Amino acid sequence: MSIYWNEKTKRLAPYVPGEQPKDRKFIKLNTNENPYPPSPLVIEAIKKAASETLRLYPDPLCTELREAAAARYGLKTGQVFASNSSDEILAFAFAAFFEARGNPIFFPDITYSFYPVYAGLWEIPYEIKPLREDFSIECSAYQGKSGGIVLANPNAPTSIALSIDELKMIVEAAEWNKRVMIVDEAYIAFASTKGSCSTQATKSMLPLIGEFPNLLVTRSLSKDASLAGLRVGFAFGNEELIEGLCRIRDSFNSYTLGSLALAGATAAIKDASYYDQINSRVIATRSRVSQELEELGFRVLPSQANFLFASPPAKNGHEFYLALRERGILVRHFNKPRIEAFLRISIGTDDEMDVFLEACREITNEK
Amino acid sequence: MSIYWNEKTKRLAPYVPGEQPKDRKFIKLNTNENPYPPSPLVIEAIKKAASETLRLYPDPLCTELREAAAARYGLKTGQVFASNSSDEILAFAFAAFFEARGNPIFFPDITYSFYPVYAGLWEIPYEIKPLREDFSIECSAYQGKSGGIVLANPNAPTSIALSIDELKMIVEAAEWNKRVMIVDEAYIAFASTKGSCSTQATKSMLPLIGEFPNLLVTRSLSKDASLAGLRVGFAFGNEELIEGLCRIRDSFNSYTLGSLALAGATAAIKDASYYDQINSRVIATRSRVSQELEELGFRVLPSQANFLFASPPAKNGHEFYLALRERGILVRHFNKPRIEAFLRISIGTDDEMDVFLEACREITNEK
Repeated sequence: MSIYWNEKTKRLAPYVPGEQPKDRKFIKLNTNENPYPPSPLVIEAIKKAASETLRLYPDPLCTELREAAAARYGLKTGQVFASNSSDEILAFAFAAFFEARGNPIFFPDITYSFYPVYAGLWEIPYEIKPLREDFSIECSAYQGKSGGIVLANPNAPTSIALSIDELKMIVEAAEWNKRVMIVDEAYIAFASTKGSCSTQATKSMLPLIGEFPNLLVTRSLSKDASLAGLRVGFAFGNEELIEGLCRIRDSFNSYTLGSLALAGATAAIKDASYYDQINSRVIATRSRVSQELEELGFRVLPSQANFLFASPPAKNGHEFYLALRERGILVRHFNKPRIEAFLRISIGTDDEMDVFLEACREITNEK
Repeated sequence: MSIYWNEKTKRLAPYVPGEQPKDRKFIKLNTNENPYPPSPLVIEAIKKAASETLRLYPDPLCTELREAAAARYGLKTGQVFASNSSDEILAFAFAAFFEARGNPIFFPDITYSFYPVYAGLWEIPYEIKPLREDFSIECSAYQGKSGGIVLANPNAPTSIALSIDELKMIVEAAEWNKRVMIVDEAYIAFASTKGSCSTQATKSMLPLIGEFPNLLVTRSLSKDASLAGLRVGFAFGNEELIEGLCRIRDSFNSYTLGSLALAGATAAIKDASYYDQINSRVIATRSRVSQELEELGFRVLPSQANFLFASPPAKNGHEFYLALRERGILVRHFNKPRIEAFLRISIGTDDEMDVFLEACREITNEK
């Protein structure tokens, strides 16, 4: 605490990101990065931009990137917002659409732990809605009078997805109440049990943007485009919602995306076939690892993301996390009610997952 | 307006950045970019990072970059904050140190027009203090009881700098009142009449960081490091102030700087000799252009920045702006009380400024 911090700053409980070890010898399954490299076209576009335009301010409207995203997803450019990560966009969306000192917004008890932090930053009251016993979202809880709704689909860290029909019931009720619903689709590219891939994600709300003026869908290039280091995210929604985000952005930082991020992200959006290919591999590996963990006695939730949420047999979650860490494998453990028994395990390459599974076997047998 | 915007969003008056023309045939003297390219070492570092690390999240602590900046400026790493532009850092600083619904903060009537916008975003009351008739800052106006103080030094768009002694009186009074003073040094590398350069800027408050626990100095790589497209800024201050900024950042977006920005900025900070050289050229060109404009009958304020603030003879500011634009030259005109007669003219290459001066001669002679 400092006498120079204001009341808000003293009160905040900031988000704590997953560990980024300096020692690269770890097998890193703790922050849901994609194990495969980004598209070669992305690297090429960045190198070109590095030599060309760094002296000048970037395009504050992100026109080329937004046009590319609109073309790929069948939307209008005015329905697309791009900024420095979907985290930043979520912060903007909370600032633009949810009322400080108004009705509480709703989100689950177990979800992306940044949501209550944003609410704290903007002084927005919130009400947490418990997940069901099986960790699925209780849809009926979100249909009452709220200040707005935030759902991650698939949810994190549970990895479980809702169906379009369930989400539609919630967004309809929110529209009736004139409130915005944010659907955070950071993991949507992996949302299929059939091994389909990013362009064909079957559970995305994107096709409903035109139908619901209160629906904002956020996306990230960190996971499915293997660009966690580039920091680019999107929001999709009706033009008025996008304009609301622009008003907040332009009251904060007019150029949130630099020239390199714009160039790299545009190339990524255009190279769907490369990404479909690597993400299909992630999904296939996920199926295999999930099955093998179950055979070892783990409880594994049905994942539609690029990670598994699983509770080990015998040892508790924290002990198992430490035992893996000793063996050079990082996963994420959340010391939180209801989920202390679980580990969140990012899907790595097949080789990495073999090492991980072997370690799990050892630790399980130790007892 | 939209029924989905909250009250804050409806009320905001966002910042309007200078024009970024798609048509590169313009001579662009409107957004204070450096006319010379960034250091070749910066480009090299970015290309290397592009091939290596984009799959992974960046270092959220920005350790290497902060260490490099600390070494260059003779500070401790804990006294350095780095983020996605000094605009973003200013937004964080307003959020961290100035009280919503508290005493008004003070800044000049004519200064960076983002300051009142940040105040609006965080609902911080403010009181504007008129510049003197000669457009210099009236120091005594800032020594009363405030919620905090924000001064750009050199000031923009006036281009005029305060002396260390004057700033010291203000920061002392603010310390007495337990309030934070932000000194925005975006243009400090050009703050010398003697042609000295970035590492030797004589008017920087950086050496006083250790002395004043309430002093926060912000910097940008956009102008003096020729990296407007990269989006990197710094804040320097005592560890408690830096921790306050971290608390806001981590309640907003944990990874504001991507791997490419980190790599490029670190290389820039380490290549002081290259930048001293290009910035000396900017300062030399500034002297020459200033003198030639005065000979043409312009009133030119004494500039310590990489731009001139000057009022043309005969035509009014807006007419002159339009006449330059017709000739393919972009400068910035602010349609605001007290400064409608002025143009803000970024310093370009000598060749660009010759074209600009020739156009000024023509327009002045037309009458």
